Amino acid sequence: MAQPLSGEPRARVLVAGASGFTGALAASLVWHHPRLELAAATSRGDAGTRLNRLYPRYRVPIELTELEIDAAASLDAALVAYPHGAAAELVAELHGAGLAVVDISADFRLHDPAVYERTYGEHGAPELLGQAVYGLTELHRDAIREAQLVANPGCYPTAALLALAPLAEAGLAEDAIVSAASGVSGAGRGGGDGLHFVNVDENFSPYGVEGHRHAPEIEQELAGLGTSGPVTFLPHLLPLDQGLLASCFVGLSREVSAEDLRSLYEERYGNERFIEVVDAPPGVRDVRDTNLCRIHVALDEDAGRALVFAAIDNLWKGASGQAVQNLNLMLGLDEAEGLR
Amino acid sequence: MAQPLSGEPRARVLVAGASGFTGALAASLVWHHPRLELAAATSRGDAGTRLNRLYPRYRVPIELTELEIDAAASLDAALVAYPHGAAAELVAELHGAGLAVVDISADFRLHDPAVYERTYGEHGAPELLGQAVYGLTELHRDAIREAQLVANPGCYPTAALLALAPLAEAGLAEDAIVSAASGVSGAGRGGGDGLHFVNVDENFSPYGVEGHRHAPEIEQELAGLGTSGPVTFLPHLLPLDQGLLASCFVGLSREVSAEDLRSLYEERYGNERFIEVVDAPPGVRDVRDTNLCRIHVALDEDAGRALVFAAIDNLWKGASGQAVQNLNLMLGLDEAEGLR
Amino acid sequence: MAQPLSGEPRARVLVAGASGFTGALAASLVWHHPRLELAAATSRGDAGTRLNRLYPRYRVPIELTELEIDAAASLDAALVAYPHGAAAELVAELHGAGLAVVDISADFRLHDPAVYERTYGEHGAPELLGQAVYGLTELHRDAIREAQLVANPGCYPTAALLALAPLAEAGLAEDAIVSAASGVSGAGRGGGDGLHFVNVDENFSPYGVEGHRHAPEIEQELAGLGTSGPVTFLPHLLPLDQGLLASCFVGLSREVSAEDLRSLYEERYGNERFIEVVDAPPGVRDVRDTNLCRIHVALDEDAGRALVFAAIDNLWKGASGQAVQNLNLMLGLDEAEGLR
Amino acid sequence: MAQPLSGEPRARVLVAGASGFTGALAASLVWHHPRLELAAATSRGDAGTRLNRLYPRYRVPIELTELEIDAAASLDAALVAYPHGAAAELVAELHGAGLAVVDISADFRLHDPAVYERTYGEHGAPELLGQAVYGLTELHRDAIREAQLVANPGCYPTAALLALAPLAEAGLAEDAIVSAASGVSGAGRGGGDGLHFVNVDENFSPYGVEGHRHAPEIEQELAGLGTSGPVTFLPHLLPLDQGLLASCFVGLSREVSAEDLRSLYEERYGNERFIEVVDAPPGVRDVRDTNLCRIHVALDEDAGRALVFAAIDNLWKGASGQAVQNLNLMLGLDEAEGLR
Repeated sequence: MAQPLSGEPRARVLVAGASGFTGALAASLVWHHPRLELAAATSRGDAGTRLNRLYPRYRVPIELTELEIDAAASLDAALVAYPHGAAAELVAELHGAGLAVVDISADFRLHDPAVYERTYGEHGAPELLGQAVYGLTELHRDAIREAQLVANPGCYPTAALLALAPLAEAGLAEDAIVSAASGVSGAGRGGGDGLHFVNVDENFSPYGVEGHRHAPEIEQELAGLGTSGPVTFLPHLLPLDQGLLASCFVGLSREVSAEDLRSLYEERYGNERFIEVVDAPPGVRDVRDTNLCRIHVALDEDAGRALVFAAIDNLWKGASGQAVQNLNLMLGLDEAEGLR
Repeated sequence: MAQPLSGEPRARVLVAGASGFTGALAASLVWHHPRLELAAATSRGDAGTRLNRLYPRYRVPIELTELEIDAAASLDAALVAYPHGAAAELVAELHGAGLAVVDISADFRLHDPAVYERTYGEHGAPELLGQAVYGLTELHRDAIREAQLVANPGCYPTAALLALAPLAEAGLAEDAIVSAASGVSGAGRGGGDGLHFVNVDENFSPYGVEGHRHAPEIEQELAGLGTSGPVTFLPHLLPLDQGLLASCFVGLSREVSAEDLRSLYEERYGNERFIEVVDAPPGVRDVRDTNLCRIHVALDEDAGRALVFAAIDNLWKGASGQAVQNLNLMLGLDEAEGLR
Repeated sequence: MAQPLSGEPRARVLVAGASGFTGALAASLVWHHPRLELAAATSRGDAGTRLNRLYPRYRVPIELTELEIDAAASLDAALVAYPHGAAAELVAELHGAGLAVVDISADFRLHDPAVYERTYGEHGAPELLGQAVYGLTELHRDAIREAQLVANPGCYPTAALLALAPLAEAGLAEDAIVSAASGVSGAGRGGGDGLHFVNVDENFSPYGVEGHRHAPEIEQELAGLGTSGPVTFLPHLLPLDQGLLASCFVGLSREVSAEDLRSLYEERYGNERFIEVVDAPPGVRDVRDTNLCRIHVALDEDAGRALVFAAIDNLWKGASGQAVQNLNLMLGLDEAEGLR
Repeated sequence: MAQPLSGEPRARVLVAGASGFTGALAASLVWHHPRLELAAATSRGDAGTRLNRLYPRYRVPIELTELEIDAAASLDAALVAYPHGAAAELVAELHGAGLAVVDISADFRLHDPAVYERTYGEHGAPELLGQAVYGLTELHRDAIREAQLVANPGCYPTAALLALAPLAEAGLAEDAIVSAASGVSGAGRGGGDGLHFVNVDENFSPYGVEGHRHAPEIEQELAGLGTSGPVTFLPHLLPLDQGLLASCFVGLSREVSAEDLRSLYEERYGNERFIEVVDAPPGVRDVRDTNLCRIHVALDEDAGRALVFAAIDNLWKGASGQAVQNLNLMLGLDEAEGLR
């Protein structure tokens, strides 16, 4: 069964690393996309297996293949869903071959090589760090449109930054505490004992208490928006599959009303098609299997703090959905194409 | 089938409101307790039903009965598990009849009648507010021993205060943010549409954003320990049955090392039989069906904040387990009797 | 925000009872359907509420309204999602007004009024029983195309009959045991204490042991296919939201090979767009949020029994998805329109 | 922290393979048992780790060690929780050293070596097969009391056989279909990708369709009770941790009333302390963390079939709980000691 192609021209897209959770969703989004063609979906461990067998829910009947880098010449774009550290070299090759590349791994998210090394270890293509655009679409849309290499944000930073950006841009955020929680798919298909059903079921616990690798990403982007106060980021593991909530507590630099806060968010995001500013606390279930981010803001007047909540699907807006959103922009397509 | 009574003398205990989640567990703990006799388990809505039918897991074969207040004369003690607002009058009567009373509802937790009214509405027995001892055992043990009326803490305040007390007592806590999450049993057997399986399953969301009624309780007790800075308390609903985690972010008034923090907690709680200070983040699953509180403390050095995590079972240490712990003390029994 | 209507003509559809689980999904499917217009979504209990507030996941921004039967004249079709027993009168009125009606309730599924009364009580429009076509699309497609009134099957009968039909049609089924299990949404939005999260979570139990009302429906249809042996139907409640599996054990009237069985199913369903015959046991997760039925057949040679498994999403193929599939046929549209 | 030992003499017990799910529970039951001493808990992969770190819930503070077979001389008994196939040799050694041994693996359950080999592969100590008593306590209590080697039953056979035995013993069971479902802990701590949270969550599917290794065990025991008709056994995987339900459909050899069936079960199990015959369908949640089996029997009169449901906790009555129940008997202790 071939991808149903209509008469419209399509960009030919490679999804590299399509057997993991984010790669498989990326392959599915490309497969069902009206303007993209899934040229190949590769996997190192599962080549020869049909994607349908690994992920029946996605209904992509193609076979996973080994990566053939020579074939890159015939492609227009690539979504790379390799593990952190393993992506840089491939990204460099594909970028060198002239493809528009969205890297879903962490390899190009941090501008500062020293911060990258402290967080993830040695970098495989440090010379490209300066060219990558941080792919939080709603913050860097114009640069993404022009980019040839987009570093797709982590799931936690996506929610946290969408929650914090309006306050940061308005000079209102003095400091921030981000208490976040994610479903298990955020940890990937590997993950070992800790992700055995029995260890997650009916459980809830914090992790990464001594420092989570998403923290530098959040700090980098907040600094770019002018907020230099301390940020504390703390993730928890939820006993569910897909869904991520960032609960943010923001020290305010000046007095504002709850209504001011609400207006600030509505104005900032009023034209965004994937952000919903709502008048009640969001649940992760509200956005499952969508590219949406639902945001609610409230005021703790006594403490002088804003409370901001952002819910996303960690696999969609937190990974592959946003990757396609970015790729759409890079290819001059409608940003929401294939994502509704 | 009668409660298996040995030769030892037992205190005769009434559990009022035994058809709700906390009341049923209270009845079960009394039933299986070596030094207490379950004299009666009452229910307004389910009188005539055997507790075993409502809660097979507790294996208490007695029939729920209507409350007969005249029978109070033959009793030694009572655990009252009525809804908030509905308990005060019964508590006053039982207290007047000379019983040792632990009120699991919120009715006697707040010392200040004005704060109570703002939070819960009119109070049914305000004259007793001054006599009730706040039953967070590890903070008020000596007073509980002497008390005739103990106001059992809320589940969130139990976890939050056990997490914060060592810092507050040491004068280290400048302010505090408590981002907490509880399983569904914390909301009680009623609760309506929102607790339908379909609305909770695979979901996670904050609630009580505009002010949760447990916040004044936390503030009252922290003030008692000398911390007057702003406290922000924010609960979330977890897709699981029993379990509660309080993740606390505490602004520190002076520089301390991670080791100092760890020592502070180990010393404060070293002799406590129901508190475990552990060297890794706790999960709620670790303490399910126990009266334990697991605490872990860490330091965010850059932000000058302590991160403290406390996990409890909301029905045990957060309600009925702690109620029995308190009753043991009031009756001169070993604090842990019937709770291991 | 109005339904995005293109230039193509659309049938104007009423969804009656749109605040329940099946009605809300029906409204959502109509709303997002390229050839249907959601003329009104009515609710007796929630009129005035926006559907988006009750079911954020469906992203239908319209307000629920009271039913105005006079307005029926301007409509082309109706999906009725009232509770069993409450639908018959409305269905009769809408049918009388000339609308194509799909009744998602049980009111017109049983041809024999006596069986209906034994199962559900008195019938509100018995004169129409003879005109209703049983809407299991893959069994009665031609009749559905011509029908003005379709009785949409129950969720359990849908899975069971799709599993059993090929064997029954081939004269192979001597008797059948259907051991089925459904997620909680199958029980509807009401349902009381038993569907409280705490009672379902980590639980699994049979119900309807003394006779489930879906059994007569299964028997009626199997008899229509020529199988008159005894059928035992037994449902269980699963601790999940959407998903239904029917595990069928069928006594075979003659010896066949596993391969024969497999071929039988592949041939019978080879052209069906919503049935997938697969070579491994299906999981309910594979078909969640789709109108698909996944079927696997195996042979227990020693016992002379076929084992047939059919997985569906109880809200989709088991209710509203199949309702739209049927409505598409009644209106002369492509059967799969709006369901992919 | 040492095991709290009182004055009473205790048998010294080894738990071999204590890092898996059943081994860890076995170690916990021995640790908290008033008449047993946990002499050692061994693990090949996790020696050096404290059991408390792997399983906080069990509160067993000892360190796992390497097995030292020479130390066996000082022991009275052993519970072996090795994987199937890996246990036989160790069991033979411990048995040879004069210990009372309960083997929780499958290695000694099947009397016929040929059946064992077909099911599990080569056997490591076939000479012992004849000496092992099948440890379904309620069926073989007297033999267990005299045994030096007990083969603890599988979780599915335990539930299925307790459900079927009264009918088989009464000569009523002509054939049987066992449609069973188990929580994930039944599959053990290993288990790979299929037990990743994401693959189990919100899912439900049959497995072992081509033949599950527990089937021969059920057939062997039913044959021993005089039922030689065909048995079809089919397991499913439930999205929960602990709990197993066997739903049995039994062709009856003669007409009986529902009341007859109920009496049959009540009489057969009336004196059993771990079996509850109940008048409503059992849920697995009712027996979680207990050694109980809850049974309900009903009649499908039209089909001439009995419906019998048995719920157990797969880790307790389905494995380690029953192992301790058997060990109690072998050591001349009260059968229920340490299990209430």
